[in-house]
Amino acid sequence: MNKLYIIKIGGNVLDEEKSLKEFLKNFSSIHEPKILIHGGGKIATKFGDRLGIESKYIKGRRVTDEPTLDLVTMVYGGLVNKQIVAQLQSLGCNAMGLTGADGNLIKATKRPAGEVDYGFAGDINVESVNSTLLYFLLKQNVIPVFAPLTHANGSMLNTNADTIASVLAISLSKHFDVRLIMCFEKPGVLEDVNNPASVIRQLNKESYESLLAKGSFHDGILPKLENAFAAIQSGVKEVLIGEHTHLLANTSYDTKGTLITLT
Amino acid sequence: MNKLYIIKIGGNVLDEEKSLKEFLKNFSSIHEPKILIHGGGKIATKFGDRLGIESKYIKGRRVTDEPTLDLVTMVYGGLVNKQIVAQLQSLGCNAMGLTGADGNLIKATKRPAGEVDYGFAGDINVESVNSTLLYFLLKQNVIPVFAPLTHANGSMLNTNADTIASVLAISLSKHFDVRLIMCFEKPGVLEDVNNPASVIRQLNKESYESLLAKGSFHDGILPKLENAFAAIQSGVKEVLIGEHTHLLANTSYDTKGTLITLT
Repeated sequence: MNKLYIIKIGGNVLDEEKSLKEFLKNFSSIHEPKILIHGGGKIATKFGDRLGIESKYIKGRRVTDEPTLDLVTMVYGGLVNKQIVAQLQSLGCNAMGLTGADGNLIKATKRPAGEVDYGFAGDINVESVNSTLLYFLLKQNVIPVFAPLTHANGSMLNTNADTIASVLAISLSKHFDVRLIMCFEKPGVLEDVNNPASVIRQLNKESYESLLAKGSFHDGILPKLENAFAAIQSGVKEVLIGEHTHLLANTSYDTKGTLITLT
Repeated sequence: MNKLYIIKIGGNVLDEEKSLKEFLKNFSSIHEPKILIHGGGKIATKFGDRLGIESKYIKGRRVTDEPTLDLVTMVYGGLVNKQIVAQLQSLGCNAMGLTGADGNLIKATKRPAGEVDYGFAGDINVESVNSTLLYFLLKQNVIPVFAPLTHANGSMLNTNADTIASVLAISLSKHFDVRLIMCFEKPGVLEDVNNPASVIRQLNKESYESLLAKGSFHDGILPKLENAFAAIQSGVKEVLIGEHTHLLANTSYDTKGTLITLT
């Protein structure tokens, strides 16, 4: 099967024009098929402040009331997404900006209001993805660029970018050998959280469980590792956790981040 | 050749939730391939006011400075476009929201600053359109929904929605029998501008020129007629000028608006 890179970037790349430019230059130089998923949190908060729309968070997740839904639809799906696409086009990369509503690519269910009401938040799973159309776009050498938005019942829904990246990776594993690259602020999973040179270069289920038993991971990285192994066990060939500045290395054999595989 | 409807709607449809809903219901019920192009002027102005971004116009055209470009990219490409797409999806219409940057579908040139500097305004012609990709999307039963934005040199550009509709119609005429439907606030071209019942039901080059010589058209409709005949002479089979509430009639043989053909 052909290789496919699914790359998720977060706020730290987007908030600085220079790092975004550098990242997009590297991204566009990857020869294999690829998909980009971006967030846009701080830019939404900044425009929210100017519009008098308060950003509310419960347990680290944004609460999406109706004005906030309009805000994130504008900022994620409009401003951030199209600026990235226009820049990639100028670099010769045929990017296409998308949300889950476009082409029904990711259909969600609105999260039910339980103990906490997250408002217009979309929950998704691998069944949500229209992988046929996505596969067709990739075959046309189109590079999908996803904003973290999905849809249900005529409404846009705010959806976690990490979750979108994982679900796309799982869904497309039937067509490609997927490497899911989760960019974050550290160069990889660290043995010593205070030492950026202590990257654990490889992890598989066995070594992960043995390190886990020894209590080697600090709390912040655990959800990322759990998500990574969930993806791996659902068919994703490799998950890489690393820094966006190492994108080129991390899309080669000689990775700098933490490469996670099943065995 | 197969029929293709290219339908442009303006502010009067978008500014009222109820008329937009009704329009989209009708649009989604059209069986043939179709493309929608929307504006979004008043909504942009409203958000501009809230953000303290002044709307400036010269000769009826918005001047797009940098804050205005961000504004229209957010509102046209994000809010309005994705709300339309989500609604169409709920009606079973596989809409895909697009700007000219996405898939390099419409590549513009930034309008040179002459006597008037319109800022980030994009000029386009039939060579600007990536009709191959658009044709492929239509073949996949995807319904493109265009925001009035294009791109050049890494930047988004604000582009007149009527022009986008015409240019798409001309470009796709090599693949389809195109009927370009320009929705506006009157039921068609009127013999008597004060009498909505006086719609001229058919116009061809000959009858147009004879009515033109008699001074039968009022000034407001002339640019629309000139654009219509320019499209017709560039290969578009039919142009229809009419009201958005008559969409179903105007996508049938028994049209209510003004149907313009070459002969």
